[in-house]
Amino acid sequence: MKIFKIAVFLVFIVGILTASAQNKNLREYGIEIGVLDTGPMNSITDVRGVQVGHQTLIKEDPIRTGVTAILPHPGNLFQQKVPAAVHIGNGFGKLAGSTQIQELGNLETPIILTNTLSVPTAADALIDYTFTFDDNNNVRSVNPVVGETNDGYLNNIRGRHVSKEDVLKAIRSADSGRVSQGNVGAGTGTIVFGFKGGIGSSSRIIPESRGGYTVGVLTQTNFGGVLQITGVPVGKELGKYYLSDQLNESPDGSCMIIVATDAPLSAHNLERLAKRAMLGLAKTGGISSNGSGDYVIAFSSAESVRIPYHSKNSIQNQPEIRNEGMSPLFMAAIEATEEAIANSLFHAETMTGRDGHTINALPVKRVMEIMKEYGRGEE
Amino acid sequence: MKIFKIAVFLVFIVGILTASAQNKNLREYGIEIGVLDTGPMNSITDVRGVQVGHQTLIKEDPIRTGVTAILPHPGNLFQQKVPAAVHIGNGFGKLAGSTQIQELGNLETPIILTNTLSVPTAADALIDYTFTFDDNNNVRSVNPVVGETNDGYLNNIRGRHVSKEDVLKAIRSADSGRVSQGNVGAGTGTIVFGFKGGIGSSSRIIPESRGGYTVGVLTQTNFGGVLQITGVPVGKELGKYYLSDQLNESPDGSCMIIVATDAPLSAHNLERLAKRAMLGLAKTGGISSNGSGDYVIAFSSAESVRIPYHSKNSIQNQPEIRNEGMSPLFMAAIEATEEAIANSLFHAETMTGRDGHTINALPVKRVMEIMKEYGRGEE
Amino acid sequence: MKIFKIAVFLVFIVGILTASAQNKNLREYGIEIGVLDTGPMNSITDVRGVQVGHQTLIKEDPIRTGVTAILPHPGNLFQQKVPAAVHIGNGFGKLAGSTQIQELGNLETPIILTNTLSVPTAADALIDYTFTFDDNNNVRSVNPVVGETNDGYLNNIRGRHVSKEDVLKAIRSADSGRVSQGNVGAGTGTIVFGFKGGIGSSSRIIPESRGGYTVGVLTQTNFGGVLQITGVPVGKELGKYYLSDQLNESPDGSCMIIVATDAPLSAHNLERLAKRAMLGLAKTGGISSNGSGDYVIAFSSAESVRIPYHSKNSIQNQPEIRNEGMSPLFMAAIEATEEAIANSLFHAETMTGRDGHTINALPVKRVMEIMKEYGRGEE
Amino acid sequence: MKIFKIAVFLVFIVGILTASAQNKNLREYGIEIGVLDTGPMNSITDVRGVQVGHQTLIKEDPIRTGVTAILPHPGNLFQQKVPAAVHIGNGFGKLAGSTQIQELGNLETPIILTNTLSVPTAADALIDYTFTFDDNNNVRSVNPVVGETNDGYLNNIRGRHVSKEDVLKAIRSADSGRVSQGNVGAGTGTIVFGFKGGIGSSSRIIPESRGGYTVGVLTQTNFGGVLQITGVPVGKELGKYYLSDQLNESPDGSCMIIVATDAPLSAHNLERLAKRAMLGLAKTGGISSNGSGDYVIAFSSAESVRIPYHSKNSIQNQPEIRNEGMSPLFMAAIEATEEAIANSLFHAETMTGRDGHTINALPVKRVMEIMKEYGRGEE
Repeated sequence: MKIFKIAVFLVFIVGILTASAQNKNLREYGIEIGVLDTGPMNSITDVRGVQVGHQTLIKEDPIRTGVTAILPHPGNLFQQKVPAAVHIGNGFGKLAGSTQIQELGNLETPIILTNTLSVPTAADALIDYTFTFDDNNNVRSVNPVVGETNDGYLNNIRGRHVSKEDVLKAIRSADSGRVSQGNVGAGTGTIVFGFKGGIGSSSRIIPESRGGYTVGVLTQTNFGGVLQITGVPVGKELGKYYLSDQLNESPDGSCMIIVATDAPLSAHNLERLAKRAMLGLAKTGGISSNGSGDYVIAFSSAESVRIPYHSKNSIQNQPEIRNEGMSPLFMAAIEATEEAIANSLFHAETMTGRDGHTINALPVKRVMEIMKEYGRGEE
Repeated sequence: MKIFKIAVFLVFIVGILTASAQNKNLREYGIEIGVLDTGPMNSITDVRGVQVGHQTLIKEDPIRTGVTAILPHPGNLFQQKVPAAVHIGNGFGKLAGSTQIQELGNLETPIILTNTLSVPTAADALIDYTFTFDDNNNVRSVNPVVGETNDGYLNNIRGRHVSKEDVLKAIRSADSGRVSQGNVGAGTGTIVFGFKGGIGSSSRIIPESRGGYTVGVLTQTNFGGVLQITGVPVGKELGKYYLSDQLNESPDGSCMIIVATDAPLSAHNLERLAKRAMLGLAKTGGISSNGSGDYVIAFSSAESVRIPYHSKNSIQNQPEIRNEGMSPLFMAAIEATEEAIANSLFHAETMTGRDGHTINALPVKRVMEIMKEYGRGEE
Repeated sequence: MKIFKIAVFLVFIVGILTASAQNKNLREYGIEIGVLDTGPMNSITDVRGVQVGHQTLIKEDPIRTGVTAILPHPGNLFQQKVPAAVHIGNGFGKLAGSTQIQELGNLETPIILTNTLSVPTAADALIDYTFTFDDNNNVRSVNPVVGETNDGYLNNIRGRHVSKEDVLKAIRSADSGRVSQGNVGAGTGTIVFGFKGGIGSSSRIIPESRGGYTVGVLTQTNFGGVLQITGVPVGKELGKYYLSDQLNESPDGSCMIIVATDAPLSAHNLERLAKRAMLGLAKTGGISSNGSGDYVIAFSSAESVRIPYHSKNSIQNQPEIRNEGMSPLFMAAIEATEEAIANSLFHAETMTGRDGHTINALPVKRVMEIMKEYGRGEE
Repeated sequence: MKIFKIAVFLVFIVGILTASAQNKNLREYGIEIGVLDTGPMNSITDVRGVQVGHQTLIKEDPIRTGVTAILPHPGNLFQQKVPAAVHIGNGFGKLAGSTQIQELGNLETPIILTNTLSVPTAADALIDYTFTFDDNNNVRSVNPVVGETNDGYLNNIRGRHVSKEDVLKAIRSADSGRVSQGNVGAGTGTIVFGFKGGIGSSSRIIPESRGGYTVGVLTQTNFGGVLQITGVPVGKELGKYYLSDQLNESPDGSCMIIVATDAPLSAHNLERLAKRAMLGLAKTGGISSNGSGDYVIAFSSAESVRIPYHSKNSIQNQPEIRNEGMSPLFMAAIEATEEAIANSLFHAETMTGRDGHTINALPVKRVMEIMKEYGRGEE
């Protein structure tokens, strides 16, 4: 028993050591996705105001899980709500808070991502967090928004090891720098296309002539299908895909996708934008399988569209992108989602967890060879 | 401070004493709603297999809240799921678990009702509950379903005084007898049309020629508008309604409605059935105001449509009511919802709670006089 | 054969004569619905800009059908679209144009109501109509919006006797005066609660302190259930209702409901407003039966929220009622819908049509007696 | 004027001649999409019972349009309805009949595809068609289902040149052979990714161990984005894509996607299946732009799930694939949609139409060179 634990631990250490080469974005290998420019950091935090924080839990038990917090702006969100929308790609998941976002068209807490069975804890922590603001002293109704994917293959998920303090730490640690990716936060124990997944992020800027807005995406990847990287059939070449003869990888799991933009959008058009993120997921080979909880939450961080909790005016003057201005933003969301998912794979490292289960990182070297066979990557 | 608490306590005691006359169903006053027969108990538990349990929390602090558990059948729900659907009347609420019900068309935990800020605790408790079954030892994904209304006017809701143990007690105490109504369980601290609301229940049986099925409804009432009782404009006569000059009662709050039936229904037709419950709410004068979280969860307890978690067969043979057989069930859901809401009012008692707030019970004697003026009730 | 036709004709004449007493609004009998004030005409045309026109087709064959046109404003709607939304109470119907309204949040043609099998003709006529404007010379995509109910019991609906010219006439005859009600336009051959239905209209004004906006409703009534008039169980008293022993009236048919307002609403909140109209239908005893196509189309005629087809600006500044300002409008929509349906009954006259089928007008005298027994109406 | 017409005619003839090389499926160039096997004909008609017919209208005026009819089975669909569902990718379109499919979960007419402004005519023709069956003599309500895309760049769409007879001809000519693709039927005048689009079809068979079912797809392609063929960035290489500097191709247009299967599916799971078709569209580089009407209609042709119009039994015994059996079907729908869209491009020919507008066929030779650079196609 003890020996087994030590063995697991060693595999784990080895996993960390061998995997350390992974920590690069797809673009650092000379591979681009799409036709639009990325933001300066190629990260959801390129969208002004957006902050991200992680709390990573890797401990014996084995615990391989964590928390990721996305803040639309650094202030008191309950008092200054942001327009938001939810699109459900496939609803086999436990997303908390979706119906109120859809009804009222706004978001009043940070978005927390974690594991499936820790959603209640995270939701409770968001209530705590909201109550920490003095301005919220009379608040008696809070809509905590928590997404999840299931890390139960590597993590002892039944142990529910995420604490409220872990959630608060993720929020407090949030900043506007480049997002850490791979085996961090809510992506610590996730699996995508049979390889180690995790957190990934990317961003796009639409042409100045179309408004010059930024769209940023953060994904928590934990799903399957037939992996494609910028269209190259990597999963097929590696013989590792859903319904292949040998491995018959399960396509289940889930994908949480957060889409942020500084474009002044109404909830109505944010819902349409959210819908496009699933098209980005499709391009990675995801099939939104029966057992996958694929949700997209989109919000606008533009100051001009913030919704104050209280207002003397019954009418709010809202600048809004006209419908025909949406298409460039749609394309940006598709590209950034595809790239964010790819980045999660390129950053994630081999991990060993529950019952000695090991999930390998994407074999980047071999993948790069395949990419070259398919005319991609650096010469 | 101490004196204030004692005063509150006295008002509370007086409330209990004076209110004891309330504990009757509407029908015991000779008033009927609709044209269909009720079930034997006029309770959601008339639907075979359905069980209901309450945990009522009335303590100093002041705590005026609780938990109500609805079990579609007494077995292991995770292993024997029931077809289910959700309809959202107005989504200003925190219902947990809705998207998975909608996607997969089934329910795998009891339904818990509680206060707004205790949803996370209740959801967590449902995971605990699911794990208590040995058969569920390998389960790593659970979709807890928890509805709520906001009892924060009478209850110190920010204190989040509902514990996981309270939730488990409500589940364990569930039985198939007549449902306790009024200030019990999740209805302990709720307010409806400006009067004390709470839990209410009712049932209907459709004619034998149409299948003879039972439809049962349970409501947690906490909303507003212009109260009507079987069409009589009680709210208007009492001068107590939304947009009246004097009181300007807030119509906000919420209403959770649970619809059960023994008819063998698909998730598709359960969603349609759920939708009709809102028509029943309308007949009580509810307006589904902006701030109201009005949700309906409908399920079929028919054994023939249970969905085993595991099955050797990829195909399930499902007996289903044809579309044209739905109309009698629709009418039953409307009538039972209207009567369940009325029953919550007739059972609820005056209550004093947070900051000395007092909400009076429906003045039944005065109401009966009004009813007579409008040609209703016993001669 | 000839004799039969003459007989039908005589019954028809007699129907007209005996029925002429019907032509009053419910309020002219001293009966009020709800608590809000009506607009000056108690008609959808109380909403500034809204125009309504009818084309009534009563001819041998027998033809008992027609067309009703609702114009959100008198101008070129394609060039100056209005924010709009659709809510589907029960989708057993053939509403044309719903998905584009829902996606884009606007309406670009008048709304046409007619019979089920004439929807294509009416849609085609709306394209013709749009092309009559010189400004639309380059338009190659039009979203015609046409609702319907089935008048096939009285009308030879299979004959599809509505012509494009009839539709254009209805549009051209539209004006902003009080709406003709009962057996006119698209309500010519409809049946509601087993009595002759038709077109009905009503309006409400919300208090000045809440904005003083007007909400107007027009309904085409053709459905069933258990008739209630301002809460009085008229259908039950008359022994004429769905699932009654003797008559077993079919509850099927449909109800089209148009909700107009001068409040500056986004498509998002118009959808929520549309949803409330079904609560008004519920209060008349409608059950939204399986075979009923119950659709609500809501639009804002406020000039400040018009959406120009072309704009130099990619951003539109949109004044919008904040969410918490919606509740009074919700209540207005509920009340006006209930009253519009009642008005359709009080205006409609006995009619004989296909195969000698006769549908009687509501027996107003008897109904008024019932109303008095239930404490309503003039002393 | 005359000379111009002759010129157009000549260009048109030349177009036909030069384009004749196009008429191949993608697979005939040695290129495969996905990992599943195709059906024998790689056509929607591989699904047993399904029939397809086209009526192609290429005439002076210039008329470049047509009609495509899809029959789920060759019998009287009104009497033997099939389970069906609609998914709306982006609702900028005029699909007739969607709400009734969604409400009742079934389809009762053939599906007609045509141009945007001919939807009313086609819907009217479907009513005619339904009335041609003696068994339907008492039918007074029909839900015609008609999808469309806008061919107004090449076709004089404002002329509405599709007649009811054209629609009936398309239905009558339907057979179960391999579907004609490219510039035929409703695809006669469509444009995709800036190239000539049209009708495309493909099919997949899922492994015998998963049921061995067939999924077939037919698409009417008329949309844009950044063309990818089996992941190869063809649009980017050709410098012809949305938001490219030079051409700035509009991404608007639309895509109608019909998904057929012989798997016994409920409407609930057909809706989920329909949703996946959009993932297939995404893989071709489509972005579901603001101006695109992207609709998916899915149905099951399995005899075991047919829904008789009349039945003595109020309960229907329905064999249904369990939820967890859906993932292979999802993958099949994704692959077949991607390939059907590609096939539409490979079959379509250069066409000249309205105002001398010419849209070129995909330059297959150049594309094949690009494919090779990206490691695809025959050596």
